[in-house]
Amino acid sequence: MPQARHDNLRIDEDRLWASLMDAAKIGPGDFGGNRRLALTDEDKEMRDVFVEWCEASGCIVTVDQAGNIHARYEGQEDLPPVLIGSHLDTQVAGGRFDGILGVLAGLEIIRVLKDAGIRPKRPIEVVNWTNEEGARFSPPMAASRVFSGEQSIEWLHGLSDDDGIAFGDELARIGYLGEADAGPRPIDSYFELHIEQGPDLEAAGIPLGIVTGGYTAYGLIVNFLGTNAHSGPTPMEKRSNALVGAAKLIDAVNDIGWKYAPIGKSTSSRLVIWPNKPGILPSAAEVTVDVRHIDPEVTERMRVEMHGALATAAEEARVGFEIVTDWFFGDVAFDPDLTALVRQTAEDIGVPAMDIHSQAGHDAYCVSDSAPAILLFSPCVDGITHNEAEDVIPEDTWPSVNVLLQAVLRRADRD
Amino acid sequence: MPQARHDNLRIDEDRLWASLMDAAKIGPGDFGGNRRLALTDEDKEMRDVFVEWCEASGCIVTVDQAGNIHARYEGQEDLPPVLIGSHLDTQVAGGRFDGILGVLAGLEIIRVLKDAGIRPKRPIEVVNWTNEEGARFSPPMAASRVFSGEQSIEWLHGLSDDDGIAFGDELARIGYLGEADAGPRPIDSYFELHIEQGPDLEAAGIPLGIVTGGYTAYGLIVNFLGTNAHSGPTPMEKRSNALVGAAKLIDAVNDIGWKYAPIGKSTSSRLVIWPNKPGILPSAAEVTVDVRHIDPEVTERMRVEMHGALATAAEEARVGFEIVTDWFFGDVAFDPDLTALVRQTAEDIGVPAMDIHSQAGHDAYCVSDSAPAILLFSPCVDGITHNEAEDVIPEDTWPSVNVLLQAVLRRADRD
Repeated sequence: MPQARHDNLRIDEDRLWASLMDAAKIGPGDFGGNRRLALTDEDKEMRDVFVEWCEASGCIVTVDQAGNIHARYEGQEDLPPVLIGSHLDTQVAGGRFDGILGVLAGLEIIRVLKDAGIRPKRPIEVVNWTNEEGARFSPPMAASRVFSGEQSIEWLHGLSDDDGIAFGDELARIGYLGEADAGPRPIDSYFELHIEQGPDLEAAGIPLGIVTGGYTAYGLIVNFLGTNAHSGPTPMEKRSNALVGAAKLIDAVNDIGWKYAPIGKSTSSRLVIWPNKPGILPSAAEVTVDVRHIDPEVTERMRVEMHGALATAAEEARVGFEIVTDWFFGDVAFDPDLTALVRQTAEDIGVPAMDIHSQAGHDAYCVSDSAPAILLFSPCVDGITHNEAEDVIPEDTWPSVNVLLQAVLRRADRD
Repeated sequence: MPQARHDNLRIDEDRLWASLMDAAKIGPGDFGGNRRLALTDEDKEMRDVFVEWCEASGCIVTVDQAGNIHARYEGQEDLPPVLIGSHLDTQVAGGRFDGILGVLAGLEIIRVLKDAGIRPKRPIEVVNWTNEEGARFSPPMAASRVFSGEQSIEWLHGLSDDDGIAFGDELARIGYLGEADAGPRPIDSYFELHIEQGPDLEAAGIPLGIVTGGYTAYGLIVNFLGTNAHSGPTPMEKRSNALVGAAKLIDAVNDIGWKYAPIGKSTSSRLVIWPNKPGILPSAAEVTVDVRHIDPEVTERMRVEMHGALATAAEEARVGFEIVTDWFFGDVAFDPDLTALVRQTAEDIGVPAMDIHSQAGHDAYCVSDSAPAILLFSPCVDGITHNEAEDVIPEDTWPSVNVLLQAVLRRADRD
């Protein structure tokens, strides 16, 4: 079955856009985006609709113990499947395309194959990974870490949200605690299409980014430890205010980002203070900070500077600290064969493409630990994301989906 | 009825200590202190016990619409009463003496009078003010603001806690939404005894502080306004991270406190961030800061410097801000007649006393707006307060209670 047979196959742009817009009605935000946190009622509603769409497209749907949804379009032979995946959950004030574009692009590809009566050699599975965002349950990419074998299913079920509600309990509550094993299994390959979440493709006027590597990021959760005392009478020299320690670190980490800008970045995004009341000096302030750069050696310098800033902040604020956890990510290598395949496919169907580095983590990072994987980007407006204003221009989006369709089909049909 | 008649009357130290220790069992903390937040089940339990004790001591108990408890020991004549008051609520990790010492000292005085068969000329009322701490419902001294006429009962009932639960609803839930008017009414005078919450009495070895004025404090709640964006790809120059603005202000306000130390102080104790999630730059960060100094002119300089720091923080962090509210307090003058009475009483019964400034707000500040009021301090160990380790030395505490007894009696019996 020569691959050239389907070279003129293209997606139905209107159908994919309609599905994206129908999905955007589920868990609407306040400003045109979405709030569909993992394992909430909104996530369940979105999952139910997705499952219905997949079954209507001739897929067999399986839910695993991590709540990942696998919609399988059978191949002619019982070979390891080609996966297309991303996520349906969003940030608290997320956009309409982050994650879901990759899932519904996969579904659109199945729909195209079904309508054309094409049965590829290998099965194709569209996957929705649970809790990619990490907005409700930390860390992000939680379920794909189990798929990669990095974490156990017990670890995943034991995660809890800010209200102390367990991941496993919520999974059961919304009816997505499946029976299938969520750990590594033989697959042929994994394709993920995602909006860039950066401005580079738009600036270059190129509709497809082939991710050849990731920014390396180093993150840290540190808990500053002070002493509760009355905010009024306690003299400055007797104060040990954990919040002041956190503030000094946040300020210093921000400076580190600027020092290595425009490529380097630094972030403080989360701070949990106790008791966080007027009138009482806080005894604990747990802050999440990270630094990132395209060059791992520079990231390492930023890491060292951040640890120096941490020691200085604690000393100046007269507080103690304990490192709760730290992590590296982004030192990822995507599969050379898949990369070459996508490059060739884009050239063959006339879609301009460029190599690009990912600046954020994605499920493809985790999957790449246990299987050949590739991550593709399509442009987004102004690089705005994790914001309800996130947007895409439809005609700049379809070329990447058509490349995905053709590349997946070639991969699934190969000898 | 000459006042000298009762000059040898003293409190029952063991009885007062036993009541303090019994009360400390209600709403115990994790480290020997108390957690009895306003209008919680623990507050209700403490109130129920207090009401039972007051009724057993011959008082008529009235609850007003603010939930304030007034335990009235009748006088010989129907004249405006002498009030002794403070509060039974605590901070989230509060001590065993902050507030409750003043309430139970009042009860002990009633018990002494009842046991001695003394009926003073004027009625004496022991008052528990609702939500003095402001730890659950902001601001502090909420109910005494209604008593002073500064705020309405509707304002009080409309306050909500961090979970959005209304003050009025919780008051009704615990059964302390009374019918009596909570606003200003004719009283003869108001006495409040409180632990110092500072180290000065202990350092001087003097058991009684007569508060002649307050530190002036200026506070500010400011909401920094940024833009939600992905913490990964967004370049530094496109970031507007509200948390960075808050951190810069907190750091700068801390510096202002040190600049005017040891008398001057500055505090950042509360910071509410949205959405406060890993992976997303916060768009809002609402911080509570204050500065204070004994000299109102210096407080004014600190205020101006804090506003300068605010503008600088916002500019450097590239964020906007809005001032949610600001306040002054502490420019209080207690009643000269009551001050002279307490000085004379202490001298007469041989209790060393010193003038002192209050560094924190108390219900007496509010009551002094509408009636003659005085605030007295007793020593506390190491000046530690709003901390479960808060402690007093009993024998250093009783002299101030005996002065309170004698001064109240003289005031109640005067012609």
